Amino acid sequence: MNSADCSSHSATARLLHFGSPGAIYLRRFVGSLHVGRCGSNPTHVKTLRLRSNPPKTITVTEAEVAASAKIIDGKMVAKEIRDEITTEVSRMKDAIGVVPGLAVMLIGERKDSATYVRNKKKACESVGINSFEVRLPEDSAETEVLKFISDFNDDPAVHGILVQLPLPKHMNEQNILNAVSIEKDVDGFHPLNIGRLAMRGREPSFVPCTPKGCIELLHRYGFQIKGKKAVVIGRSNIVGMPAALLLQREDATVTIVHSRTQNPEQIVKEADIVISAVGQPDMVRGTWLKPGAVVIDVGINPVEDATCPRGYRLVGDVCYEEARKVVSAITPVPGGVGPMTIAMLLSNTLSSAKRIHNFQ
Amino acid sequence: MNSADCSSHSATARLLHFGSPGAIYLRRFVGSLHVGRCGSNPTHVKTLRLRSNPPKTITVTEAEVAASAKIIDGKMVAKEIRDEITTEVSRMKDAIGVVPGLAVMLIGERKDSATYVRNKKKACESVGINSFEVRLPEDSAETEVLKFISDFNDDPAVHGILVQLPLPKHMNEQNILNAVSIEKDVDGFHPLNIGRLAMRGREPSFVPCTPKGCIELLHRYGFQIKGKKAVVIGRSNIVGMPAALLLQREDATVTIVHSRTQNPEQIVKEADIVISAVGQPDMVRGTWLKPGAVVIDVGINPVEDATCPRGYRLVGDVCYEEARKVVSAITPVPGGVGPMTIAMLLSNTLSSAKRIHNFQ
Repeated sequence: MNSADCSSHSATARLLHFGSPGAIYLRRFVGSLHVGRCGSNPTHVKTLRLRSNPPKTITVTEAEVAASAKIIDGKMVAKEIRDEITTEVSRMKDAIGVVPGLAVMLIGERKDSATYVRNKKKACESVGINSFEVRLPEDSAETEVLKFISDFNDDPAVHGILVQLPLPKHMNEQNILNAVSIEKDVDGFHPLNIGRLAMRGREPSFVPCTPKGCIELLHRYGFQIKGKKAVVIGRSNIVGMPAALLLQREDATVTIVHSRTQNPEQIVKEADIVISAVGQPDMVRGTWLKPGAVVIDVGINPVEDATCPRGYRLVGDVCYEEARKVVSAITPVPGGVGPMTIAMLLSNTLSSAKRIHNFQ
Repeated sequence: MNSADCSSHSATARLLHFGSPGAIYLRRFVGSLHVGRCGSNPTHVKTLRLRSNPPKTITVTEAEVAASAKIIDGKMVAKEIRDEITTEVSRMKDAIGVVPGLAVMLIGERKDSATYVRNKKKACESVGINSFEVRLPEDSAETEVLKFISDFNDDPAVHGILVQLPLPKHMNEQNILNAVSIEKDVDGFHPLNIGRLAMRGREPSFVPCTPKGCIELLHRYGFQIKGKKAVVIGRSNIVGMPAALLLQREDATVTIVHSRTQNPEQIVKEADIVISAVGQPDMVRGTWLKPGAVVIDVGINPVEDATCPRGYRLVGDVCYEEARKVVSAITPVPGGVGPMTIAMLLSNTLSSAKRIHNFQ
């Protein structure tokens, strides 16, 4: 791997270390373990292996191991969507004088949360959505948070309310998320929204942003979902579970793979569509994937890398270098699902304002 | 098949017609079709086939083709549960003077619905639960139904409210089911209950009766769910989907097979646990099943049979005669899941009364 490359998808010359086992990435899963550094794709290596013993380390250029996978460019699609939202926000303002508004609450001092909130605020500004920010100290009382939520529920200038997670430990997440009006739950985390998402013939007011972004990528790139075998890796309330429900609504045959799944590799290998959301760097190896599959990688995992300016680089749940030689299309990390999440949050806020004001 | 047998699980001598293809049972599914009369298990036939051409029709006794599958006796388990409920109802009455009450609403003149309602009423009586019945004519106004629901919501003698489905076509099922107080929704059909069922770390107030009954059978017979591959056939709001969510909560790796699934046979064949709820008589053939699997058959399908007193007999979704030679355990139809549904309704009503009156 080119040491100067601090993203997960270099396209430069690299060194293949044949036969040198690296870290075990599969930490929480039971079943068969693959030992080997992500990137040393055993399938590919086989075609290149020199007939010598011990195997030699050789340098090959990226062109020689060129992959055919289409790169699903989330950054570009998110930009398209934000442009569409900008147009719609402007049209709404001109027509009925209403500007969509998003309230964001941040409780505590987590740096990552502060960054997310800042990015959401900037994204609102960029499309013309008003943002309202509340920052409360770590030791705030739950009642104080609930009071702000109640005020936002009643505020006609606010069409979406978002409470940045995780909350400080002394707070009851369930109480707080349930307090958000179902009509302003732009995160789509309310159990009533999840219930409607699960039920045939029902429509949720909002779909959680990250899984919605995953499906939007499949749609915009024209990948068929109906009748396909889909595997979702991870069953979190905010990504894995709703992603599975969305695929199910679109007539895929869906399996959820999780930490108690036996032989996850074998199950993933059968999937035409893979959505991975476990937060395990490079867990899904090239050998896990069906040739021609479409891979949506939700994981954004920092891994230590002293050669990068920040001391780390970001990788997905899927070993990108291996996967791109096997699958037909894949999202990069970063630049895949990440930008879609905020785009979907803006989309949900716009939809909410349209619905509240009955604007088509 | 013994012509006098009008259930789906005869245990008498029978005639095997080797090589005589019968009806195609797979109607709504795409993928490979198996042609052959349910019961003429090709795997089994192979071991018995005489070396003659054309194959002969021979008579074998049931003992000769004895199956090893354990019969999951839903009738017996339901009886056990009803006995437990009787004891608890009595204990509650003695301790705090409260008798659980179930309100059942029947709108219209459907005979099957009337039978279900009558059975529920009788079941309540048998365990000491009070039942309140409302019958309204087919052409009732939706507002009239909503008024009754509202009254039951407020009535302290009522701890569970059940609206018998299907409703007359002019009524909006969603409006009516949503009107039932979440605290008295003993059917568990409210989207808030379904949402909580789908979410990790949340607890539904009630779990829908039929899928709850399926899982209860697995528990009472001591079948492990955690880590097992489970397939649910069918994705209805009242059985398939909540059954999948329940299995998922118990750490199975779950796939939902539905009418758009390609090669359902191949997917079902990999499952350690199969729950079928599609309403297609004998659709799941012996060849679909993994040896040693556990099968819960929710289907109760009438098939014409002139030799039966009523002109029909009941069969499941799974071809019982074939399946019992392959799997390790199976529910019969009738006498499997059927009796469990009402037992779970009584259980939900008791739980509701206990919760409302804070009685342990």
